[in-house]
Amino acid sequence: MFAPLATSKAALGLKDDIALLSARRGHEIVVTTDAIIAGVDFFANDPPDTIAQKALRVNLSDLAAKGAQPLGYLLTLALPKSVGSAWLRAFASGLKRDQQKFGVTLLGGDISSTPGPLCVSITAFGEMPTGRAVLRNGAKPGDLVFVTGTIGDSAGGLAALKAKRREPQLIKRYRVPEPRVAFGRRLRGIARAAIDVSDGLLADLGHIADVSTVHIEIDAARVPLSAALRRAWGSSQATTVRAATAGDDYEIAFTAPRRHSETIFKAAKAARTRVTEIGVVTKGSGVVLMGQAGKPIRVKRAGWQHR
Amino acid sequence: MFAPLATSKAALGLKDDIALLSARRGHEIVVTTDAIIAGVDFFANDPPDTIAQKALRVNLSDLAAKGAQPLGYLLTLALPKSVGSAWLRAFASGLKRDQQKFGVTLLGGDISSTPGPLCVSITAFGEMPTGRAVLRNGAKPGDLVFVTGTIGDSAGGLAALKAKRREPQLIKRYRVPEPRVAFGRRLRGIARAAIDVSDGLLADLGHIADVSTVHIEIDAARVPLSAALRRAWGSSQATTVRAATAGDDYEIAFTAPRRHSETIFKAAKAARTRVTEIGVVTKGSGVVLMGQAGKPIRVKRAGWQHR
Repeated sequence: MFAPLATSKAALGLKDDIALLSARRGHEIVVTTDAIIAGVDFFANDPPDTIAQKALRVNLSDLAAKGAQPLGYLLTLALPKSVGSAWLRAFASGLKRDQQKFGVTLLGGDISSTPGPLCVSITAFGEMPTGRAVLRNGAKPGDLVFVTGTIGDSAGGLAALKAKRREPQLIKRYRVPEPRVAFGRRLRGIARAAIDVSDGLLADLGHIADVSTVHIEIDAARVPLSAALRRAWGSSQATTVRAATAGDDYEIAFTAPRRHSETIFKAAKAARTRVTEIGVVTKGSGVVLMGQAGKPIRVKRAGWQHR
Repeated sequence: MFAPLATSKAALGLKDDIALLSARRGHEIVVTTDAIIAGVDFFANDPPDTIAQKALRVNLSDLAAKGAQPLGYLLTLALPKSVGSAWLRAFASGLKRDQQKFGVTLLGGDISSTPGPLCVSITAFGEMPTGRAVLRNGAKPGDLVFVTGTIGDSAGGLAALKAKRREPQLIKRYRVPEPRVAFGRRLRGIARAAIDVSDGLLADLGHIADVSTVHIEIDAARVPLSAALRRAWGSSQATTVRAATAGDDYEIAFTAPRRHSETIFKAAKAARTRVTEIGVVTKGSGVVLMGQAGKPIRVKRAGWQHR
């Protein structure tokens, strides 16, 4: 079922325990890994193709935020006994579709049984001109802060699924995120720091603030919310706070010098990706969400806590 | 707790979502991934440092069997709520010890909570002169078949743990396998096909027979069994069958032309690794275990079935 997905020579036709990787001259390999677990990151009864797509895409999103060109991935499946071949076929079809969409190929992996919930762990590989990856630690006072797409839709989808409300647009964003691969590549040499929004917009900008040792100020009114989310949650400031602390967005948040603004919006247009300027980087530490009349909004929890 | 393990520049101090890998000129990167799950591959109450070591070592064993020099690894942990910081500290200490022993470093990873059993998934990276990896598909009629170490000890340890029998030597082999890294490297250019014994000696030689399209004949009397296993299971042919179909050995089974025999035993001595010649490769397909007077032994199940 998975062998047809291993189209690269590097995968050795899945006939060995290993894959062989090499980067073109002057390039390095960017590696990232993320696992999703039934009952935590998706629902066990979600369509299997969307589970596969989510597992792959959350990893492609990490590569995109660094400006890397995705190459391939390893797939580790821990399967409960209840999973049969029809489920696996649908799962593989989701991977196949996304392999074509993102130009990646299966390189290998590991399948085992588990008495626990389904777990899909992926390690993804990308290629990058050596030394040009956009890291978290480069933000400088004076930079502007930007974010792709809209924030909070995935959380809106999760809430709708829990409440059994029909919100197909939001649910789709929860199940199948849209990694900003084409746009991310254009941030090489433009963005000073970048991260993909998985823990929550404020939490992830907090990671940038921490390792860049800067302060980040976000204008609540500018945080981009979709029409679908406004319909579901209303247009109040509380919606913005909830959206900016929810996570699972897989958008790219990044900082760049003001002089690159025009280049950034041109790149966004070329990659057909919405980009919004949402704040500024200053001296100091931490992240603050600014409300009306320049008053900071108190936020109880910036985002997802890793345990 | 894990940051001190990330001593390579490639890990970016675990401060980003990615690691950056590059191979030396004329080298490629060998990648492998394997997950171990509580209740399947280890006992939830095993000492945490041995769980960490097993997770790392089963991956290093895959690299060793290909002749690669290990470099580093990604660690994905799915942790039940019951796991606390004392457990994690002990787990990290097991990794630290093995990092020093095998010259590898933590490159990154992902930690999440799970409502299910503890799962440790590792992706390991090694380096290899381009094109020199020892694959599964190179066995040729006329080759001799060899295996490192002894077979069945890990299964003996598992049986002892289940029966609550004290068999420290066998239990240690179950909990902490010994990847043959130093010896594996010496098989470059010598072995024609190699695999690490995880599914079972006969099952894994079956993988070589399949992809090399050859027949492999193993002499049951030559399958190396430890004194500890003979004490626990007796010295009958049934013990050999059970050992050769049990798996989890993490020894290297390989084939090589007869003319390399002397080189192989010299390499074994230099790497302080026991190596035994156990059979031959001929034309045909499949694997057979030969008993006394050249009679094939009927084996019900060659080894671990991947679901």
